[in-house]
Amino acid sequence: MNKIAIAIHGGAGTILKSSITDEQETACKKTLQKALRVGYAALEKKKTAVEAVELAIIELENSPLFNAGKGSVFTNMGTHEMDASIMEGKELNAGTITLVHNIKNPISLAKLVMEESEHVMLGGEGAMEFAKRMGCNFEESSYFYDEYRYQQWLEAKESNVVQLDHTTIKNNKIGTTGAVALDVFGDLAAGTSTGGITNKKFGRIGDSPIIGSGTYANNLTCAISCTGTGEFFIRGVVAYDVSCLMEYKNLSLIEACHEVMHHRLVKIGGDGGLIGVDPNGNVAMSFNTEGMYRAYKQSDKSEVIAIYKE
Amino acid sequence: MNKIAIAIHGGAGTILKSSITDEQETACKKTLQKALRVGYAALEKKKTAVEAVELAIIELENSPLFNAGKGSVFTNMGTHEMDASIMEGKELNAGTITLVHNIKNPISLAKLVMEESEHVMLGGEGAMEFAKRMGCNFEESSYFYDEYRYQQWLEAKESNVVQLDHTTIKNNKIGTTGAVALDVFGDLAAGTSTGGITNKKFGRIGDSPIIGSGTYANNLTCAISCTGTGEFFIRGVVAYDVSCLMEYKNLSLIEACHEVMHHRLVKIGGDGGLIGVDPNGNVAMSFNTEGMYRAYKQSDKSEVIAIYKE
Repeated sequence: MNKIAIAIHGGAGTILKSSITDEQETACKKTLQKALRVGYAALEKKKTAVEAVELAIIELENSPLFNAGKGSVFTNMGTHEMDASIMEGKELNAGTITLVHNIKNPISLAKLVMEESEHVMLGGEGAMEFAKRMGCNFEESSYFYDEYRYQQWLEAKESNVVQLDHTTIKNNKIGTTGAVALDVFGDLAAGTSTGGITNKKFGRIGDSPIIGSGTYANNLTCAISCTGTGEFFIRGVVAYDVSCLMEYKNLSLIEACHEVMHHRLVKIGGDGGLIGVDPNGNVAMSFNTEGMYRAYKQSDKSEVIAIYKE
Repeated sequence: MNKIAIAIHGGAGTILKSSITDEQETACKKTLQKALRVGYAALEKKKTAVEAVELAIIELENSPLFNAGKGSVFTNMGTHEMDASIMEGKELNAGTITLVHNIKNPISLAKLVMEESEHVMLGGEGAMEFAKRMGCNFEESSYFYDEYRYQQWLEAKESNVVQLDHTTIKNNKIGTTGAVALDVFGDLAAGTSTGGITNKKFGRIGDSPIIGSGTYANNLTCAISCTGTGEFFIRGVVAYDVSCLMEYKNLSLIEACHEVMHHRLVKIGGDGGLIGVDPNGNVAMSFNTEGMYRAYKQSDKSEVIAIYKE
């Protein structure tokens, strides 16, 4: 069987060992492991990289621990606005959605945009209408209610701070989710799903639904999913930058990810991380923050699940 | 004085000499000339490239001839939804808005996002709220009503076609607007503004508000504004691709634009065009369609205003 590989992330940021209880750490790792195993099992069953990415992200969206789907943070209006995107590397098809609410699994909606619409990106109430026609799963707002996220929001509101999901007022913030995969057919895919930033106003859109910035996949180079302060990832066109460094400068995946995360993004002041996989099944997990919730598994190798810097 | 340069476009598509009356051609060229002169005069007065780009696009937005601002096409709901973005090449700051309505000059709102908000991209009603707080000019829906666009919409609705502003049911479709400039300080900027596609549904978002796809600027390489079938420009991350070919493969602006428009974009089936300027004041105007409404002026050289292939 050809090589397969999957990598996932649950956000990068100021994650200090000292500020997380053992219980929190265990819960997060367990959810990461579950998502990883679901995705890897799909690849083993010869499902496509797109399917594996969707399935892994659904697990993270369904957990209250991560800032996507059920665990999405509160906006300034006390609502949940979610963004997601997915891209496949064979034909360079992509689907992305922004400013949706009450959708149980935004990543699945992004996939439907890619596969069932003539467009790449849908937003707002129009995207909701599309979701209804496609028969997506909707959830009441109470499904997205989480006491911890609510307290986080109240604090942010009080201090009038637009807060990144992973910055520190409280200490166990967990962020944006994403996955990248290489399937048995040699195809790559990447996906990202997020609730954005706590107390966000004005319909702020980050990099997660932006093809080229938060998500990119191309069988010639790599599949990438990003997490961090989205504004910098947009300005740096980060995901596609990794691909271009590989395609145009012949850098390896690891080298390209390092160059982007530790030099190019830093130059404009950006913080965060990314995960990547290349057509040979190599995996990169690069971040310039204290930690990144992450996990990966490659053919015939052990699972790796980690949070802090090694 | 250092070199200055500005280039503008009013959309690319199936524009055939035989299908446009002399009056239409004259009106379009006159508007392009006016926008070009406003932008160039700003650069001569040592205004920044960002200001010149904004001023030139405002002229195009205020004309009913182009598909942006006043001339925006009708959505499936009979409304006008507009997208715009702007980026400057010195610090790589950017501002972009999507799914807004009743805003007289979307490009100015994008500039306000860049300069006055802590975010890069705002969308929908949230972006409208931001516009109100910033004191943007709003217009009644009647301001955006145009008999020709209305008929175009009725025909599209009847045939249930989601119609690109420049494809042909009627023959004088005119599209998305954009501008790129080099100012006397050596700084680059790019901007794009659009009403999207006639009869668009589901909150469709094209490449115009996507940094890296429809718009990109970097003093090291180029400033780019795109027009065409947005879905392909998103999947191709077209604007940043030009920049990467220059930065990573040392292609000239002209070579990079040609490579992207005539090879890379064509490979995924995309049609459209782009304009670019580099730090030396070189201008590129590349398109793989029948025509592109376009104009440019460089220091000490004559104005160039054109529609068809040369």
